Amino acid sequence: MGQRRLNVGLIGAGRIGKLHAEHLCRRIPRARLVAIADANAEAAQDCAERLGISRTEEDYHAILADAGIEAVVICAPTDLHATMIEETAAAGKHIFCEKPIARTLREIDQALEAVEHAGVKLQIGFNRRFDADFSRVRRAIVAGEIGQPHLLHIISRDPGPPPIEYIRSSGGMFLDMTIHDFDMARFLIGDEVEEVYASGAVKVDFAIGEAGDIDTAVVMLKFANGVLATIDNSRRAVYGYDQRVEAFGSGGAIAVSNNYPNSATISDAVCVRRDLPFKFFMDRYTESFLMEMAAFINAVLDDTEPMVSGVDGRAAVLLAAAAQRSHEENRPVLLREFDTE
Amino acid sequence: MGQRRLNVGLIGAGRIGKLHAEHLCRRIPRARLVAIADANAEAAQDCAERLGISRTEEDYHAILADAGIEAVVICAPTDLHATMIEETAAAGKHIFCEKPIARTLREIDQALEAVEHAGVKLQIGFNRRFDADFSRVRRAIVAGEIGQPHLLHIISRDPGPPPIEYIRSSGGMFLDMTIHDFDMARFLIGDEVEEVYASGAVKVDFAIGEAGDIDTAVVMLKFANGVLATIDNSRRAVYGYDQRVEAFGSGGAIAVSNNYPNSATISDAVCVRRDLPFKFFMDRYTESFLMEMAAFINAVLDDTEPMVSGVDGRAAVLLAAAAQRSHEENRPVLLREFDTE
Amino acid sequence: MGQRRLNVGLIGAGRIGKLHAEHLCRRIPRARLVAIADANAEAAQDCAERLGISRTEEDYHAILADAGIEAVVICAPTDLHATMIEETAAAGKHIFCEKPIARTLREIDQALEAVEHAGVKLQIGFNRRFDADFSRVRRAIVAGEIGQPHLLHIISRDPGPPPIEYIRSSGGMFLDMTIHDFDMARFLIGDEVEEVYASGAVKVDFAIGEAGDIDTAVVMLKFANGVLATIDNSRRAVYGYDQRVEAFGSGGAIAVSNNYPNSATISDAVCVRRDLPFKFFMDRYTESFLMEMAAFINAVLDDTEPMVSGVDGRAAVLLAAAAQRSHEENRPVLLREFDTE
Amino acid sequence: MGQRRLNVGLIGAGRIGKLHAEHLCRRIPRARLVAIADANAEAAQDCAERLGISRTEEDYHAILADAGIEAVVICAPTDLHATMIEETAAAGKHIFCEKPIARTLREIDQALEAVEHAGVKLQIGFNRRFDADFSRVRRAIVAGEIGQPHLLHIISRDPGPPPIEYIRSSGGMFLDMTIHDFDMARFLIGDEVEEVYASGAVKVDFAIGEAGDIDTAVVMLKFANGVLATIDNSRRAVYGYDQRVEAFGSGGAIAVSNNYPNSATISDAVCVRRDLPFKFFMDRYTESFLMEMAAFINAVLDDTEPMVSGVDGRAAVLLAAAAQRSHEENRPVLLREFDTE
Repeated sequence: MGQRRLNVGLIGAGRIGKLHAEHLCRRIPRARLVAIADANAEAAQDCAERLGISRTEEDYHAILADAGIEAVVICAPTDLHATMIEETAAAGKHIFCEKPIARTLREIDQALEAVEHAGVKLQIGFNRRFDADFSRVRRAIVAGEIGQPHLLHIISRDPGPPPIEYIRSSGGMFLDMTIHDFDMARFLIGDEVEEVYASGAVKVDFAIGEAGDIDTAVVMLKFANGVLATIDNSRRAVYGYDQRVEAFGSGGAIAVSNNYPNSATISDAVCVRRDLPFKFFMDRYTESFLMEMAAFINAVLDDTEPMVSGVDGRAAVLLAAAAQRSHEENRPVLLREFDTE
Repeated sequence: MGQRRLNVGLIGAGRIGKLHAEHLCRRIPRARLVAIADANAEAAQDCAERLGISRTEEDYHAILADAGIEAVVICAPTDLHATMIEETAAAGKHIFCEKPIARTLREIDQALEAVEHAGVKLQIGFNRRFDADFSRVRRAIVAGEIGQPHLLHIISRDPGPPPIEYIRSSGGMFLDMTIHDFDMARFLIGDEVEEVYASGAVKVDFAIGEAGDIDTAVVMLKFANGVLATIDNSRRAVYGYDQRVEAFGSGGAIAVSNNYPNSATISDAVCVRRDLPFKFFMDRYTESFLMEMAAFINAVLDDTEPMVSGVDGRAAVLLAAAAQRSHEENRPVLLREFDTE
Repeated sequence: MGQRRLNVGLIGAGRIGKLHAEHLCRRIPRARLVAIADANAEAAQDCAERLGISRTEEDYHAILADAGIEAVVICAPTDLHATMIEETAAAGKHIFCEKPIARTLREIDQALEAVEHAGVKLQIGFNRRFDADFSRVRRAIVAGEIGQPHLLHIISRDPGPPPIEYIRSSGGMFLDMTIHDFDMARFLIGDEVEEVYASGAVKVDFAIGEAGDIDTAVVMLKFANGVLATIDNSRRAVYGYDQRVEAFGSGGAIAVSNNYPNSATISDAVCVRRDLPFKFFMDRYTESFLMEMAAFINAVLDDTEPMVSGVDGRAAVLLAAAAQRSHEENRPVLLREFDTE
Repeated sequence: MGQRRLNVGLIGAGRIGKLHAEHLCRRIPRARLVAIADANAEAAQDCAERLGISRTEEDYHAILADAGIEAVVICAPTDLHATMIEETAAAGKHIFCEKPIARTLREIDQALEAVEHAGVKLQIGFNRRFDADFSRVRRAIVAGEIGQPHLLHIISRDPGPPPIEYIRSSGGMFLDMTIHDFDMARFLIGDEVEEVYASGAVKVDFAIGEAGDIDTAVVMLKFANGVLATIDNSRRAVYGYDQRVEAFGSGGAIAVSNNYPNSATISDAVCVRRDLPFKFFMDRYTESFLMEMAAFINAVLDDTEPMVSGVDGRAAVLLAAAAQRSHEENRPVLLREFDTE
């Protein structure tokens, strides 16, 4: 047991917080989850008890104040992310924070500055980078298996829209949902986007439109290296969680398909069929949530760069803002338009 | 043998002309190919001899003048299409013409007016509509198998670029290559496009760029009914002819994959693999060329509407023009901009 | 047209005879079908008229007597095959004969002796050898893509049983249906079978059992080179024509899947599905019927060995007899048991 | 935390024992692993320490003597299984035992009698029944999705043979490897086998033959309900762990494919390919090992029947013995031959 373990505190015992807590306790031997904070004391206690964690806090500042805690995992509501990052950085602790960092570039820049100043590590929760399929695509591109990449397509459709109250406070589909795809595009191509053209529509539910949002979109990205990418989003794919990418280049193409609960194919008098893909993001992305957290723990203990940086977190929010503007003004929007704002 | 057969003349004994000639002679019982015209007398004779056709002409006007010929298949160079359509229509003969009708809307409109005036039938050679895969997608959409369509993606990549001399006189990739995809989009969705946004690039061969053309593109289409569509084009997919579509709607999705010379899957110590898709459009689309010609013969003999009209031929050229303008001006282009020009 | 064409006569204008006639007339430029014989004069005339053949005969001996006819395609009922082969060989004409050569080894040996004596070519109608999928498997094995073959599995299921009257005179499922799979096994492995173990059952229709036949079977073959093979037969696969093989060896495996009318995959709220495979053998094996006949014409004109010999035709019938005995006696049967009978 | 947890002792801290230990500690909330026994004290201590278990024993009898331990997981060498089952049953504890129960029917019957007499639960470690793919096939058969089953095929090939010393003491391939497939066949069909015909060969490694064993086999099973099944085994599939089944019936068919580390398909100038299937059984069957243990814990706590009974464990060994005899005597062997021995 000579192995050194990282003492971790968790802020926010909601759905995703509980998942991270379980991984930290049971699946990541190098981590030791020592405290869980949630303004809802009961939520923190339930989670802690289930995992045999003895300490819970209503006020997360107690975690920040604990010198024995080396890293903090932030799963609180988005509104609090930036402030918590700043405070955690000031406390000299490493940070894993769920996406998005914040909804405005100003808040993000302030948070990243605090991280920079404190010299702590920050990893943003773009878990999909750690998925076996998508990381295989990245490896193929890096290894030159498809030559120079020319084109990229991302299909990203949810099984169903979130509640309309959630939509209202989500910051819009580009910031709430497409943000994963913006990060995926940057991750896979390994370069920066220069221009965005986005077309959105209300196709799934009129109530979403009345709430001022869209539920269907196609976004086109132009990368600095000339790659053209598209993102296809829908809030409702009736057949399940539809998450695929295809990259095409001078030497070939790579595509990944959806993930299914089984591989069975049934042929009967009507058709040849298989069961639907996973419907729930936690079933589809289970492994990637584990992998991202293990990678964070490793990055801290081994003093390496986190695989998803604060810069990555900022870039995805910027792309969401550009897509929103493009959609509203129906014109290609250059990212550098935001430089002087 | 009481069956009535349609007497057909063919103009242009090049690659596609020879294919149509063979289908008319050997595979379409209701057709009788009686004459082949080509300015290159030898080409016409070779083709005729191989098929046991006794009559060839250097001047296609001889075919137009023959009262016994009821329909004409035009496979001459694009520059001649519009004039030939007008003349054939004036001669009172039904017309099958390869795409595109012409490179300018003015020529097209004049040709279509002649057809209208003569009351003959005109079918344009968008053979892909007759492909077993793409027609299955259309049937699914018509039958409501995917509900109301929301999104459409067309992948259309050639195995390799044509010779640079061909590129120079091709009218540009949008008119020469994407034109099939413009027609496919309209065919599948069954509605008209209102706006086009196109991004092109030179990725395959610098010489293509020097010739003033592009070889890689992504085009986004907005249909009147709100469907958003993308077209992905490349002049070179090293793995073969890549021709796929995927349509997504309120009730589900339908996708078709490439066509392969066999279904064998080989597993060895390195990978699980299969042979490449077809590399040549005539191998990939053999059946559809036969089906489109049979449909034309049927349309004439049974006096029904051809499945690809002159209006369809015009619309695809208009879309190519809009895409070209969008690419050049980097902005979404409304099709109605062309109404007043 | 300096190309030399082979004058061919056809005996038997039934379903398969008509298909061969069409191929010979329209799809195989090196062949010239000059006469069609059928005891049913009307059948011969219908077929001839449709293809523009001027000569028909009620008595096939007229074809044998015609010195201008160089090759004969025999599509008559099985009972007549052996006699017709002998007579055609005696007339010095090359022979294509549908399977099986005959139902008894004695008749077969006599027919093959006549062919041998006359020095004419004989090709048996095991069309599946010419299928793009199965021939790809054979090429893989020959090329060493799977190393030394160890195991082979053949799935061969019909969409539905033939009429019960047909069953009664069919010679039994092993001779009527499995015969194709016996030939396929020998073709793919390229070696001789030494022992057969067969288990049959009546699962599809009790009437088949009452007629003294089976409708479901598993057959195990041991080849001289040690390969173990299984054949899986059913008279009824409700989802269509199920025709697959898988070969496994020291260096890997190769498998082929069924053939489908299209490649479309539809995802809806219920399942991910595709249309059923082809249901009719002529749809499934269209190309292979054309290829086998073209190969026969080439073998004659180019004086090469036919790809399916009389020995192949005999071996498949012998395997059927051994399987029948194995099934009846429930024991492995050595093929050499038949040597002394 | 009112939830009742089952106190479990583990015997045998080898490869599979460690996996079960981890699952019991970390992944199965209803279980509490309290002690690990292994004759190799260091192995037990390493495993315990890694999981935070405080108690280890060299002599497993200490576990049997502990009144607080309610269930025992036996992962000791096969030779010890039967005795341990008897002793554990005598101690009144529920038992999970790895397969096979023993190598002789006499030992098995004695062990099962002890279990019966003690009234404890016994589950045998046929983990594959809990695999998502194979359990889907079982559900399809139970639900009638393929109608009445007629035919079953099991492909079960290992990536590579075990060390030759292991082979020598393994009891033969049928008992060591095919045993999983015998259980799978019974599980999927839900009925008993009446007759076995097995053909084995040495194809992979001559040393295996010299050790008196085989490395390649095809086994045919006849079930009481008339289903015919085949099992295909090889000790070496160079492309990885090949584990598939296909069931065919009056209403259709169901097939499952291999499991892959990712779903990526790469097309380049050479072929369309994907990465190899999993090579290691613990990667392929990870989930099923977890599921079988969770099911055992549930069966004890909820007082339900274990999903793999002692009868199942016995049947698989009997089938192995019958297959061995069939292979040696080259004849179909009835299972009831063993009744009077």
